[in-house]
Amino acid sequence: MVEITHLQPKEKKGLILVITGHGKGKTTSALGLILRACGHGLQVAMIQFMKGDLYAGEWDGIKMLNCPVELISTGKGFCGIQGNPYPYKEHRANAQDAVRLAREKMSSGQVDLLILDEINNALHLKLVDLDQVLDLIKAKPPLMHLVLTGRDAHPRVIELADTVSEIQEIKHAYRQGIEPQPGIDY
Amino acid sequence: MVEITHLQPKEKKGLILVITGHGKGKTTSALGLILRACGHGLQVAMIQFMKGDLYAGEWDGIKMLNCPVELISTGKGFCGIQGNPYPYKEHRANAQDAVRLAREKMSSGQVDLLILDEINNALHLKLVDLDQVLDLIKAKPPLMHLVLTGRDAHPRVIELADTVSEIQEIKHAYRQGIEPQPGIDY
Repeated sequence: MVEITHLQPKEKKGLILVITGHGKGKTTSALGLILRACGHGLQVAMIQFMKGDLYAGEWDGIKMLNCPVELISTGKGFCGIQGNPYPYKEHRANAQDAVRLAREKMSSGQVDLLILDEINNALHLKLVDLDQVLDLIKAKPPLMHLVLTGRDAHPRVIELADTVSEIQEIKHAYRQGIEPQPGIDY
Repeated sequence: MVEITHLQPKEKKGLILVITGHGKGKTTSALGLILRACGHGLQVAMIQFMKGDLYAGEWDGIKMLNCPVELISTGKGFCGIQGNPYPYKEHRANAQDAVRLAREKMSSGQVDLLILDEINNALHLKLVDLDQVLDLIKAKPPLMHLVLTGRDAHPRVIELADTVSEIQEIKHAYRQGIEPQPGIDY
């Protein structure tokens, strides 16, 4: 048999996490944090920038989770990519809504873990401004965890973070012509 | 309003994914896949190598998920790390049990997504043999997705995978003396 250790930090601290890079697994990793946080009884909100036009399994997966999680997709797909029909102005307006929502969630006192999915990418694409992201980070309540995902994280954001992971693509199925598969890629 | 696209691959294919590297987010990313897969109605099993001695939020998080997921932790902590009291022989025996269990799950026909958490690391530490891992990969049913996590993935495993992400550590809170926080680090 194995003895199970239950860790308990002497000091609780709300962390700032950045998950960036061009490889697969950034949003997925943030989704995994939801499952982990739920096990500890934390309240979670995930706000997705730019996402909302493409069905993803997590939208329903989260509804199957018997714990207080909110997932809000505010966007209309990745700005500027081939096939996306919406103009920059509309993407920017959606991202600005997402920033306001993030501020609301932060100041509500109801959220222990706030995930801003694709915000790094939204900043890179100028849908939000650096100052807005820095202001969000500075407004973080001390015990709230804040996770910022998306490729091309800004150096100033990385500087302020406690933990930063960069996911590199070594290989990706789509480069072999394999279509996105449900449950894995979306 | 935004029109929601539902992707549907012309050809369904069970993928082989490898999540490796020394940064935070490998197991977490695999947990996120569980949430995504559940949304698509897939049946999931996660077998954890070497884990089982340290409570993690996902153990309870998964129980809160109203879909067919099984999480089995077969181990006694990371072999050879400071403070781990169990001898190599015992770690190896546990990992061998995990391999047998993986074969059972594969041949049961009941699993759409099988996650072998930390198996790359277990191979690197010689708790399982390369041939065993290659045999597992070769025995994968065509429509089953197989995910292999853990640092130091073997080059032969990477070769056989469809998608490989390497998570690099840019920063980690513990290097600043911040203790592991519940819901984020465990």
